Amino acid sequence: MSPKSTAASQVHAASASTGTDKLLLRALRREPTERAPVWLMRQAGRYLPEYRAVRAQAGGFLAMVQDAELAAEVTLQPIRRFHMDAAILFSDILLPLQAMGMELRFDESGPSLPKPLRTRADVLALRPGDPAADLAYVGRALELVKAGLPRDVALLGFAGAPFTLASYAIEGGTSKSFLELKKLMYRDPATFETLLARLADVVTRHLLFQAEHGAEALVLFDTWAGTLTREDYRRYAAPHTARVVRALQGRVPLVLFAGQAEHLFEDQCAFEPSAVAVDHRSDLAVAFERARGRCALQGNLDPGVLLSTPEEVTRRTQALLDSVRGRRGHVLNVGHGVLPATDPECVAAFVECARGSRP
Amino acid sequence: MSPKSTAASQVHAASASTGTDKLLLRALRREPTERAPVWLMRQAGRYLPEYRAVRAQAGGFLAMVQDAELAAEVTLQPIRRFHMDAAILFSDILLPLQAMGMELRFDESGPSLPKPLRTRADVLALRPGDPAADLAYVGRALELVKAGLPRDVALLGFAGAPFTLASYAIEGGTSKSFLELKKLMYRDPATFETLLARLADVVTRHLLFQAEHGAEALVLFDTWAGTLTREDYRRYAAPHTARVVRALQGRVPLVLFAGQAEHLFEDQCAFEPSAVAVDHRSDLAVAFERARGRCALQGNLDPGVLLSTPEEVTRRTQALLDSVRGRRGHVLNVGHGVLPATDPECVAAFVECARGSRP
Repeated sequence: MSPKSTAASQVHAASASTGTDKLLLRALRREPTERAPVWLMRQAGRYLPEYRAVRAQAGGFLAMVQDAELAAEVTLQPIRRFHMDAAILFSDILLPLQAMGMELRFDESGPSLPKPLRTRADVLALRPGDPAADLAYVGRALELVKAGLPRDVALLGFAGAPFTLASYAIEGGTSKSFLELKKLMYRDPATFETLLARLADVVTRHLLFQAEHGAEALVLFDTWAGTLTREDYRRYAAPHTARVVRALQGRVPLVLFAGQAEHLFEDQCAFEPSAVAVDHRSDLAVAFERARGRCALQGNLDPGVLLSTPEEVTRRTQALLDSVRGRRGHVLNVGHGVLPATDPECVAAFVECARGSRP
Repeated sequence: MSPKSTAASQVHAASASTGTDKLLLRALRREPTERAPVWLMRQAGRYLPEYRAVRAQAGGFLAMVQDAELAAEVTLQPIRRFHMDAAILFSDILLPLQAMGMELRFDESGPSLPKPLRTRADVLALRPGDPAADLAYVGRALELVKAGLPRDVALLGFAGAPFTLASYAIEGGTSKSFLELKKLMYRDPATFETLLARLADVVTRHLLFQAEHGAEALVLFDTWAGTLTREDYRRYAAPHTARVVRALQGRVPLVLFAGQAEHLFEDQCAFEPSAVAVDHRSDLAVAFERARGRCALQGNLDPGVLLSTPEEVTRRTQALLDSVRGRRGHVLNVGHGVLPATDPECVAAFVECARGSRP
């Protein structure tokens, strides 16, 4: 534990709240808050020794995700250590593909799908996917987390966005240039459209399923949307993202994330999700101007800065908070996931700076 | 050869010019031109069957780069087939690291440097690097290309920018998250600064060496600059890029490329290079507004579009040209390198659209 954790706990207890009054949920509704709520993408992960200990026993990433008790345990680890304002379920964006019958593997180099989709027949052979049955362990894990969570910490669920799921399904894994994706998209747009429509269905059902099992807000990760030009995003990806956002509207708050996608920011705001995540290479104050009150904003410290020192993290986090002070609807976060080589003391400095408990 | 190549050749001959009157050079000076000059990043490469034939004999990428005759041959291949307005030497951005004594290897997954730089001692052990002696084959290759080039086609040389070279030298290859780079940059900024200053020296000398051997314009590739926030770019990378740009100013036209770096566009324009390359995810017409006449602009068709059909390429290229018609200083290009799976007919459509020889 960090030597500052006692002080952090006191602040934590002092601001305790429940239900829809939780700080994160108020910020997502753009209500006035005493400070910005804080959590970090990939806050449960390899940078934590207690995570590595669980993983060493579990036999791999997917085994942890699919074991509700282990998933709940690693979800709670960063909350115990740092007292963020939200816990995000330890899970994976690609699970909807598994629910549709695609085989999914994980190794040190990331996810792979041994039978990628390349033809119309491949797409039509997918099952519709029933998250409540096929991904029941996600529901159980959420319930276990909920039972172990401090009263004022919000619980987040998530899924990959249709375009990003399609990119993995077509490429068979991560990709630098998305050759197969773009070939299918440009040469057989009808099949691409069919695939994205099916993905939008299963993603929506997976998100609603998570809300039924305790998720108080949801994140839709469109990791690879930034690879598209604005014209192609509007034509091929946006309509399906918009369908998911609309299906959640008025039911569960939704945060929309897209990787390195400043050029798509206007379109994302136009969907009117609860919040849009801002990449760390964008200026957050400028993003608030551009959002014109349509949504809250999440972000945006460079996760690379968490590789520096606690002092540097404090300085840069303070500067970030100062740059948007007085703005409603700011959720402090990193611009992209925490890196495995991060020193937990740097994460402590980030969270404590948000809480005002580190000078 | 493309069935349209005869028509293309006629247009080509009709617009023939020499020396500093070459269309590309006039556009880089923002003089009025009858049309936008056109070339493509990675126009010599694996998508061409004649390139694959040479490569099959040569025994690897680096062997081709280091053999002046083979390098010249593959540089000329796309000019013979498509008649672009510029030939760019077949070479590699990392050669300055080789001149400094670093071992450099290439395989199917890209470049690797088996002894990456991690400490101050590693950096101080680098040789200053003498491109004229260590990279003499580059000079010979440029002279061979020059001898074989049509009179109106400009010859381009290039090098990696200091920050991008540092990222390869520290990571030991390509990287997704630049962990080692950021650790050194944040934790030992003095060593990082020393490295970048040395790289700026050798890069400047390598570029001037290429100009002495026939390169009429130069490209500085800062492939990974976009990974930095604007604050970090200004602090750690920009001063060294600026030094290289200043050393070339008034001597040889210079195009500045940075990958996915819309957030750094203002800083790049402020260096006042001859041109800034615009990523395909940025709006080119907006970029012209933002550049305010400080430099020409290069770009910016999505290289992914070259995976579609010649008709789609023509439609999108025409729309791109129409969006900036009347602007001085536009060099038509892709926003990033041509992908290996590209159909040469799509490249033909792109070039012919620029020449006005495909309706």
